[in-house]
Amino acid sequence: MSKPVLKLPILTWGREYNRQILTQDLLAALIVTVMLIPQSLAYAMLAGLPAEVGIYASIAPLVLYALLGSSRVLSVGPVAVVSLMTASAIGQFAEAGSALYWQAAMILALMSGAMLLLMGLLRLGFLANFLSHPVISGFISASGLIIATSQIKHLLGVKADGQSVFEILGSLVQQLSAVHLPTLGIGGSALLFLLWVRRYLKPLLLKIGLSVFVADVISKAAPVLAIVATSLIVWQLGADSGVKIVGMVPSGLPPLMLPQWDAALWQQLLVPALLIGVVGFVESVSVGQTLAAKRRQRIDPNQELLALGASNVSSGLTGGLPVTGGFSRSVVNFDAGAQTPAAGLFTAIGLALAALFLTPALYYLPQATLAATIMVAVLSLVDVKIFRRTWRFAKPDFWALSVTFGLTLLYGVEVGLVAGVSLSLALFLYASSRPHIAIVGLIEGTEHFRNVERHAVQTSQTVLGIRVDESLYFANARYLEDFINQAVAEHQQVRHVILQCSAINHIDASALESLEAIQQRLTAAAIQLHLSEVKGPVMDQLAKTDFLQHLTGQVFLTHYQAVQQLGRSEPEWSI
Amino acid sequence: MSKPVLKLPILTWGREYNRQILTQDLLAALIVTVMLIPQSLAYAMLAGLPAEVGIYASIAPLVLYALLGSSRVLSVGPVAVVSLMTASAIGQFAEAGSALYWQAAMILALMSGAMLLLMGLLRLGFLANFLSHPVISGFISASGLIIATSQIKHLLGVKADGQSVFEILGSLVQQLSAVHLPTLGIGGSALLFLLWVRRYLKPLLLKIGLSVFVADVISKAAPVLAIVATSLIVWQLGADSGVKIVGMVPSGLPPLMLPQWDAALWQQLLVPALLIGVVGFVESVSVGQTLAAKRRQRIDPNQELLALGASNVSSGLTGGLPVTGGFSRSVVNFDAGAQTPAAGLFTAIGLALAALFLTPALYYLPQATLAATIMVAVLSLVDVKIFRRTWRFAKPDFWALSVTFGLTLLYGVEVGLVAGVSLSLALFLYASSRPHIAIVGLIEGTEHFRNVERHAVQTSQTVLGIRVDESLYFANARYLEDFINQAVAEHQQVRHVILQCSAINHIDASALESLEAIQQRLTAAAIQLHLSEVKGPVMDQLAKTDFLQHLTGQVFLTHYQAVQQLGRSEPEWSI
Repeated sequence: MSKPVLKLPILTWGREYNRQILTQDLLAALIVTVMLIPQSLAYAMLAGLPAEVGIYASIAPLVLYALLGSSRVLSVGPVAVVSLMTASAIGQFAEAGSALYWQAAMILALMSGAMLLLMGLLRLGFLANFLSHPVISGFISASGLIIATSQIKHLLGVKADGQSVFEILGSLVQQLSAVHLPTLGIGGSALLFLLWVRRYLKPLLLKIGLSVFVADVISKAAPVLAIVATSLIVWQLGADSGVKIVGMVPSGLPPLMLPQWDAALWQQLLVPALLIGVVGFVESVSVGQTLAAKRRQRIDPNQELLALGASNVSSGLTGGLPVTGGFSRSVVNFDAGAQTPAAGLFTAIGLALAALFLTPALYYLPQATLAATIMVAVLSLVDVKIFRRTWRFAKPDFWALSVTFGLTLLYGVEVGLVAGVSLSLALFLYASSRPHIAIVGLIEGTEHFRNVERHAVQTSQTVLGIRVDESLYFANARYLEDFINQAVAEHQQVRHVILQCSAINHIDASALESLEAIQQRLTAAAIQLHLSEVKGPVMDQLAKTDFLQHLTGQVFLTHYQAVQQLGRSEPEWSI
Repeated sequence: MSKPVLKLPILTWGREYNRQILTQDLLAALIVTVMLIPQSLAYAMLAGLPAEVGIYASIAPLVLYALLGSSRVLSVGPVAVVSLMTASAIGQFAEAGSALYWQAAMILALMSGAMLLLMGLLRLGFLANFLSHPVISGFISASGLIIATSQIKHLLGVKADGQSVFEILGSLVQQLSAVHLPTLGIGGSALLFLLWVRRYLKPLLLKIGLSVFVADVISKAAPVLAIVATSLIVWQLGADSGVKIVGMVPSGLPPLMLPQWDAALWQQLLVPALLIGVVGFVESVSVGQTLAAKRRQRIDPNQELLALGASNVSSGLTGGLPVTGGFSRSVVNFDAGAQTPAAGLFTAIGLALAALFLTPALYYLPQATLAATIMVAVLSLVDVKIFRRTWRFAKPDFWALSVTFGLTLLYGVEVGLVAGVSLSLALFLYASSRPHIAIVGLIEGTEHFRNVERHAVQTSQTVLGIRVDESLYFANARYLEDFINQAVAEHQQVRHVILQCSAINHIDASALESLEAIQQRLTAAAIQLHLSEVKGPVMDQLAKTDFLQHLTGQVFLTHYQAVQQLGRSEPEWSI
């Protein structure tokens, strides 16, 4: 792994750039821009920030990712889960809407960006592997439910707060008598319209003869229609209708500014920044890998750390919030035919133009409509079937999933995620501390040995073959001792024990102690200990100790040779 | 594992009891009692407690262990490391010598006993396996150094305090001008005498013709000689000599009393109690297993949890401190010929008699002599060679050892232990996230496949055999994806990939996703994926999913069959 750390993927794809690719990238950028304007506003609102912050966070990060990212189609910006985590991190010590709140969002982006950059430089991309699939899935599903619940208040035109789903729901129920009917009418209609679009519009468009591509673009652009329509309605109702609107959004490019230095604040945001960085990275890498695989391209996790790190730092320096590669925006970019990260650059230009000239048009946009777009988007994150699937496939995965899901719902995203990762690691360690160990016998007519309990095999009364299906280390070494003690006690005529080491990839100092203890006990019982199929690296390790000199038996290349040679003296085989 | 939870080992050995065993047990008890009197006083002093507490803690626990313990020769009572941990836990919020301090020691014993009992009932004995050998070794060595350092002040007759070795040493250096010469004379002579005894007395006694047993007993009893001699000297010097003595030790049996209830205090002691319980358990089980193996007996870790738990609870209720099975006292018991736990009962009676009648004789015993006995005892805990051994054998073990050792010295026992366990687990997880994966080929004339990089083997241009040496789980699944991608890219003519699954013992949901991704990518490249030597439990798991239905290739019983069948179409083999 001696690749240079700093790579500029733009040097690769830039060289092959031509007019045809340009056309495709421009078209994709146009479609993505139209979709991103409402989405950016919505996720800023979800994070508790002014609407323009969402657009700011969609400009500089797109440029940085286009220069550094290893995925050709990933689209970076505010995404639902990261915005939720941002709100939950900052909400603990700043009022939504306050200047401190916005400062904290910028600091979060800056810090999580710096951490990702550092992880990239240290090539720590592998750390993301410790977030197992069930943990991510449980966390994302629960986040989807929390986000959807948190938006209900905008739909009803009431105030409600809380960290967990239940707190929010309780708060909502208390407010039911205060529901603002015009808001509910607008938000409810938008929600039903978007759900209908999601489910029925594309098939309908296909049925009336439109091409798949056009049908796709139209159904993806439907939220824009909802926004225009509901904005017009609120404009008609007038300013005193009581329907909450986005209101005055300042025009202009993102400001270049450094968040204030406040040691206590930065320190409090350290852990949330790390979690936001890691979760964003994992989400982004999964999306990137899925899309790359479709075109037989690859992405490089360590390069992604650098690209996402730089994107977040740029977001923090231009008044934005934490960002990452989002699923829906990237899929739209991919489906719209983006060929290179230049599509991202063009999207950034599109959003910059929107920030300069389009914000007045957003004045009457009802918050309820944004809430409806968020709810429809995040409900697709909730995966119910995975509970049944993991229950059938592997119980530890089911428990990791359920605990992450449950604790995220009950206590919020940080607790859920940390508990999920800890539990999945603990379950793995527990399993590895009780490895599968089998007594093996020969399959007749082959040189192949299998578990006596699962296959019809030949065994010997005096030669006992034992296979350990795990590397030996401190947590499972004593388990092996116990197994061999018991096996020898149950096979009274045994005079040779052969440890088939085909699955032992390394041995640590604690396991070496155990092997010595095993050998000592076997010797006392007049039984010889042999090894077979010892891997090269393990043999190298053992050669550095005096274990092999003390070994009462031999080391055989294959288990077959061992059994043949040791069994020759007493060849009574039994099936 | 459906054994009944509550066992009384006394019902087993009690049935075989006879006069000969009684004689052996009585003799052993006598020798151990003589040795335990000064040792109990010394470890009480080390823990910062009145001398009699050490004797109290050696009576009830011995009885409880004799009834419940699964080791026949383990001797339970105050031991050096646990006493150090007790002092360090209580020292944070109570003054040594105060009533609160003693209360806290009783609470620690009671709580750690209750935790051990609970762990025993839940059959959590396996948790101790997560303390690796290097971590224990580093922790014990550092504790030995801390204990030895902490006793220097008694030897010099000065005051010095501190948690870490360096704080204590610094404090000592500041006090050097205040050294009390009579104390130093007495303590220094005792120290030199004990060191001489340890090194030279036994060979000398053997040379003059004594039997091994008698020579052993005499050299083990030598501390008693030092105690008697130095006590006489101080008695001669008179009370105003300034040499610190044990002084008035109340006569009488241990009091039966409940520690005071103080919620805040109990809560603060929760974590130390857990660590003391676990460390004591691990030390005790290692000693017990070592001694049991010598007589081909076995001990049961879960039963040991119950026995040590009950012993500690009894210590906490009779004015004692946390206890466990000690190395030196158990070895003496074993060497002296103890056959059953009845020896422990007799020792308890001996110590009860000492508590009733012998305490006045301890009045003039100098603290410096006790300090010397502690120093000589704990210096044997320090293992220097293990650093070199683990460095050669396995680097992760070396780092776990060094970090545990260093942090224990610098920041005390709790920090060192927790850091050591965390680091050793992290290193294991890291290693398992980058499993050994080999491309394998056939060893000519056998049906056996080995790593192409280590053996002269036959391979095919079109059939690629890949063996993974670890179970597949979330942390390493992506690593396998990367390996296969790269291997296929480097072998352009490959049309079949056979995954030799002989070392894959389980597959989790994340790894299943990865296998599906691998299969998808291989299919796109017109390569078939096959599996060979899939273990029974893994096959059962896969059968619950639709992975096998989507599999483009086949599942073969042996890798040899797979290669034979797939290679038949294009049989060009190359070495």
